[in-house]
Amino acid sequence: MIAFGGNALLRAGQKGTYAEQLANVESSCSQLVPLLKDGNFLVIGHGNGPHVGNALLRHEAGAKVFGLQAMPMDFCGAETQGSIAYLIESAMDRVLARAGLEKQVVSLVTRVEVASDDPGFKNPTKPVGPYYSKDELMAMGASCQEGSDGVLTAGGSRYREDARGRGWRKVVASPRPIGIKNIDLVERMAREGRIVVTVGGGGIPVVKEDGAFRGVEAVIDKDLASALAAVKMGADEFYILTDVPKVYVNFRKPDEKALDSISVAQAKEYLAQGQFAEGSMAPKVRAAIYFVENGGGECIITEAGQLGNPACGTRITA
Amino acid sequence: MIAFGGNALLRAGQKGTYAEQLANVESSCSQLVPLLKDGNFLVIGHGNGPHVGNALLRHEAGAKVFGLQAMPMDFCGAETQGSIAYLIESAMDRVLARAGLEKQVVSLVTRVEVASDDPGFKNPTKPVGPYYSKDELMAMGASCQEGSDGVLTAGGSRYREDARGRGWRKVVASPRPIGIKNIDLVERMAREGRIVVTVGGGGIPVVKEDGAFRGVEAVIDKDLASALAAVKMGADEFYILTDVPKVYVNFRKPDEKALDSISVAQAKEYLAQGQFAEGSMAPKVRAAIYFVENGGGECIITEAGQLGNPACGTRITA
Repeated sequence: MIAFGGNALLRAGQKGTYAEQLANVESSCSQLVPLLKDGNFLVIGHGNGPHVGNALLRHEAGAKVFGLQAMPMDFCGAETQGSIAYLIESAMDRVLARAGLEKQVVSLVTRVEVASDDPGFKNPTKPVGPYYSKDELMAMGASCQEGSDGVLTAGGSRYREDARGRGWRKVVASPRPIGIKNIDLVERMAREGRIVVTVGGGGIPVVKEDGAFRGVEAVIDKDLASALAAVKMGADEFYILTDVPKVYVNFRKPDEKALDSISVAQAKEYLAQGQFAEGSMAPKVRAAIYFVENGGGECIITEAGQLGNPACGTRITA
Repeated sequence: MIAFGGNALLRAGQKGTYAEQLANVESSCSQLVPLLKDGNFLVIGHGNGPHVGNALLRHEAGAKVFGLQAMPMDFCGAETQGSIAYLIESAMDRVLARAGLEKQVVSLVTRVEVASDDPGFKNPTKPVGPYYSKDELMAMGASCQEGSDGVLTAGGSRYREDARGRGWRKVVASPRPIGIKNIDLVERMAREGRIVVTVGGGGIPVVKEDGAFRGVEAVIDKDLASALAAVKMGADEFYILTDVPKVYVNFRKPDEKALDSISVAQAKEYLAQGQFAEGSMAPKVRAAIYFVENGGGECIITEAGQLGNPACGTRITA
């Protein structure tokens, strides 16, 4: 199981054109060739942070300019599953053709179950979508939510003021993934030798209601969703790809130290020390711990360019 | 094989809210219950006309308001495969739960191959996306394409003036589908009893190039793509769902006549007579002919609400 980070798709300093995105994905996919040549089965999960952010902005702009309905976040997330899977399929096709590998690539639209009573829903903290002025929110019928630290509610959504003064932004929950639809099929297709793309953006979050699943506006951590997928499939290895070659303690300090291999116990201790930044390395290390504690073999956190190197990355084991 | 029309999703006279769309899809899916209860295997193709139109407008608006890159049509089509599949999965889940049926629903992002020398690419006629003024196109660096009947080219795309004077619009080809990626998997999953969603919007059009597949801006007729899928899978029946209960000759004239059953030869004769409107019933009848002429059993063109009725629709047979 591989989890692609957002930088596999959109990179800082680029305009984000279609050609740039395709080239980025192709470069990331080409790094997977050593794993494929070794005969590994491969399932790809991926982030969608910049994409779903852009989708939310486009829906907002479409409402302003053309009077279109702005769709909720789960719908936008589903859009990004389609478009990013398409980019990955296109890029992987070219990579496979160049490497002389014949493999099918298959992408599933994937809903991921979260608990309706996940504590994240009580206190949503993940900011998403465009910035609004307080006046704009008031015009949307915003009212203050009692006793909740300056949160405004409007149209069923909650908004918090940005710490850097850029305005107010919708906040959503980041609930824990508890189930992945069709993971049995993903596993079977992968074990038959296909490359399977799933849990895009962490999956479209759904909660169980009257025996069916209803979409909710939330963001599931893509590394945690990929870890859950890896556990459910009994994956041997779980690679979390990021933009640094290894995990570090004392990151960007004079005594910075790259970690080659750590146990789950060490990882937990470093987490408790605050060694890993929230929103960056901390959720990756937590996903690694989840994988290893639930029967997974080894989790490797590294950058895509290192994959051919057997000593690559930081290995987290039991 | 079932092909859902656009009206299964977005209906004229509605605002197109998320709740409306979900209710429309749920209503369409509930009409399929009699087919499922009879033990049929089910694959769903669907249109995306209004959705991809909205996606193109949102990309345009996102560029204007937020300076985001507007992505090409194949990317937008992939977005709609994700979002519409998600709506269908959500709706079908509720329908299955109510009907007491236990079935997995699986949706694949689907690329559909077209020939790079398809005649449609020489003379694209299908208008898509926003309207532009001639000045706007000139500002995009438009120049007249020699000898091609008032076509303007700008940024690699071609534009024609709208007949009703609303401005200039991008025109793309509507090439014939010649192959469907992963159709072997779709067939297997369906024959194992799963409901499979594929060829959304007619599929993401790709052409073969250097052993891989490259996306192109084009629109594949969704009924023809569904017919090809039905043929490849050896489907017994192919349902094309539309907003009228049957196919008619002399449609909306005093001597209008509903057709219960016609042969391929009769269908071709009516087509030659111009009995079926282009952009409406004619492509459906052509898709039906394609299915039957390529080994399919029976094609039924009808509205979703009629599916429980054994005498529903117009049946096209050899």
